[in-house]
Amino acid sequence: MKKESLHTLHGGDLDEISRIYGIDKGNILNFSGNVNPLGLPLSVKKAITEHPDAAVNYPDVSYMELRRAIGEYTGTDFEHIVVGNGSTELISLFIKLISPKKAVIVSPAYSEYLNEIKLSGGEAELFPLKDEEEFILNTDRLMSALTEDTDLLVICNPNNPTGTYIDCDHIRRLLERCAKTGTYVMLDETYVEFSDRERKVSAIPLVKEFGSLFVIRGTSKFFACPGLRLGYGVCSDENILNSINKMKDPWSVNIFAEIAGRTMFADKEYIEKTLELTGRERKRMYKALKDFKNIHVYESQSNFFLCKIKKEDITSTQIFEELIKDNILIRDASDFPYLGSRYLRFCILDEKSNTLLLNSLKKCLD
Amino acid sequence: MKKESLHTLHGGDLDEISRIYGIDKGNILNFSGNVNPLGLPLSVKKAITEHPDAAVNYPDVSYMELRRAIGEYTGTDFEHIVVGNGSTELISLFIKLISPKKAVIVSPAYSEYLNEIKLSGGEAELFPLKDEEEFILNTDRLMSALTEDTDLLVICNPNNPTGTYIDCDHIRRLLERCAKTGTYVMLDETYVEFSDRERKVSAIPLVKEFGSLFVIRGTSKFFACPGLRLGYGVCSDENILNSINKMKDPWSVNIFAEIAGRTMFADKEYIEKTLELTGRERKRMYKALKDFKNIHVYESQSNFFLCKIKKEDITSTQIFEELIKDNILIRDASDFPYLGSRYLRFCILDEKSNTLLLNSLKKCLD
Repeated sequence: MKKESLHTLHGGDLDEISRIYGIDKGNILNFSGNVNPLGLPLSVKKAITEHPDAAVNYPDVSYMELRRAIGEYTGTDFEHIVVGNGSTELISLFIKLISPKKAVIVSPAYSEYLNEIKLSGGEAELFPLKDEEEFILNTDRLMSALTEDTDLLVICNPNNPTGTYIDCDHIRRLLERCAKTGTYVMLDETYVEFSDRERKVSAIPLVKEFGSLFVIRGTSKFFACPGLRLGYGVCSDENILNSINKMKDPWSVNIFAEIAGRTMFADKEYIEKTLELTGRERKRMYKALKDFKNIHVYESQSNFFLCKIKKEDITSTQIFEELIKDNILIRDASDFPYLGSRYLRFCILDEKSNTLLLNSLKKCLD
Repeated sequence: MKKESLHTLHGGDLDEISRIYGIDKGNILNFSGNVNPLGLPLSVKKAITEHPDAAVNYPDVSYMELRRAIGEYTGTDFEHIVVGNGSTELISLFIKLISPKKAVIVSPAYSEYLNEIKLSGGEAELFPLKDEEEFILNTDRLMSALTEDTDLLVICNPNNPTGTYIDCDHIRRLLERCAKTGTYVMLDETYVEFSDRERKVSAIPLVKEFGSLFVIRGTSKFFACPGLRLGYGVCSDENILNSINKMKDPWSVNIFAEIAGRTMFADKEYIEKTLELTGRERKRMYKALKDFKNIHVYESQSNFFLCKIKKEDITSTQIFEELIKDNILIRDASDFPYLGSRYLRFCILDEKSNTLLLNSLKKCLD
């Protein structure tokens, strides 16, 4: 792998980073993965170590208990829930099912939406979030970009990599508009649980009302368990749910992911701790970053920040290279559409690590 | 669910059986699941309980160590191995990739082959194994059934539900024939590891020579871990491997399946114990069943037996109902193509349980 492509690497490839930069993997402060710094919930660890023998059984093919746990957690009818091998499987299945001819993807965004749409033979238009609008989705502008033949609208909310969001009322307006043209809406809420509750970001309360809405969530980021591969989709359209269940491998969620899921969603202590830590550090880091004269920070309702370097003579790649010397791994966001060579993304870790990042960043930019 | 459909249920649904027949789940002797009675290897249990924290990492996207472990276990180049979420995912991916217009499936067989072929828009002809040939695949007869436009041949070897097999030399002849017409061969070796080694059943040694051969294996049955969802495919055609890797979710095998896989394939003690138990009990049960005057048993190189009831006035469903009274759960095989209402399938468990089954069966039939 070329060194240059490492800056934009998925947070998962710490081995490669460690090898190329000669840093012990355990010493890397990984601000690139957007994973909850509290680590795997203790309740999940306990459940797995107490039941290794569970592997001798097939997972329950209807994933009833798991879906009930998700139902309680999200305040949804368990019948409206479908589980998948990470959110990835559900993104792929839903797009295959809809087979959109003409989709609109709010961008910059996760590249898999576009890949899957192309794979299923469709075309997608990228609808740009604008820097001059602080990357906040302008729903009026989006609505005028939708046409009669738009059959799928894809939004990540809060959005990755910008961290920006729209609230439930704005989503309702979009859904009402989309209902008129038979446009499906796929809403990726991977990061929604990090947002302040009073902001009312999640659209799950709208699922019952709008059958065309498919909300996708993962567990990798919030519950710090990318290795488990557990995601879920929420939708009230029976035909969509039945079709997805028919298309998917019946046991794509393995038994340890099932056990973990039945545990994590009920772990109120872990959830509260995460919200407290993320909320507090998001405020503190935002305030600190606002005071950096060479950086612009975008307001985030996620567990990460997007920043733009205001100095003309320095690129995100250079910052990446400087920070890695301090064992700090961030995400060079220059490969996202509409972002240029001056955008960085980094997530919120524990207070001490965040301070180290802020100090290193200050040192680079001053 | 209707009571009648329970007889042909997947072994996984013990809850349903337990509920309907009012038997405590823990007391059911499950002869229907074809799972190794030794249970999950201790080495795997240990590896999982020692590393619950592994879930905070994504699985290695190239599954290098896992593929190396499979390579050593199967005597194959790790580059020829692709891993999947159970053999199910690989069956589905390979068929989607080939998109056969006209496939031939040696039958009776696992219904998923046909389902997947239909899903991908193709047609399949079922090639019948014949009772008068003891359900042993007649390769000459099969070869004359293949035509110029057969683009995929599907064989399960040893075959489920018959337990019968063909050896590597016969497979070579089929592959040579198929090479002439550009026919791909998908060989499902889910049960191959239970066979006597001197029978040379596995076709993995032929993979290097025949790029059109795709061998699929699972771990659920032999390593008693259906909950893990770990399967693998072996093929020497780079284009096939690359295409499958592109089509599949990158992390469909979760981290605990990865850890388990890296452990189980090296657990020689477990493997030897399994072979010893299965080999010994297969001989003993076969001999005993041969002496039953009201049953015909087919010779098996798997960990289960197919039997035909010779009494005209009793069906497999009735036997099922009688045996469940003794907490013995077998598979009523009457729903497989070409099998009628007088076929039973049951697997090899530990010696004591097997004896209980033989006694109960004798009681029913005499």
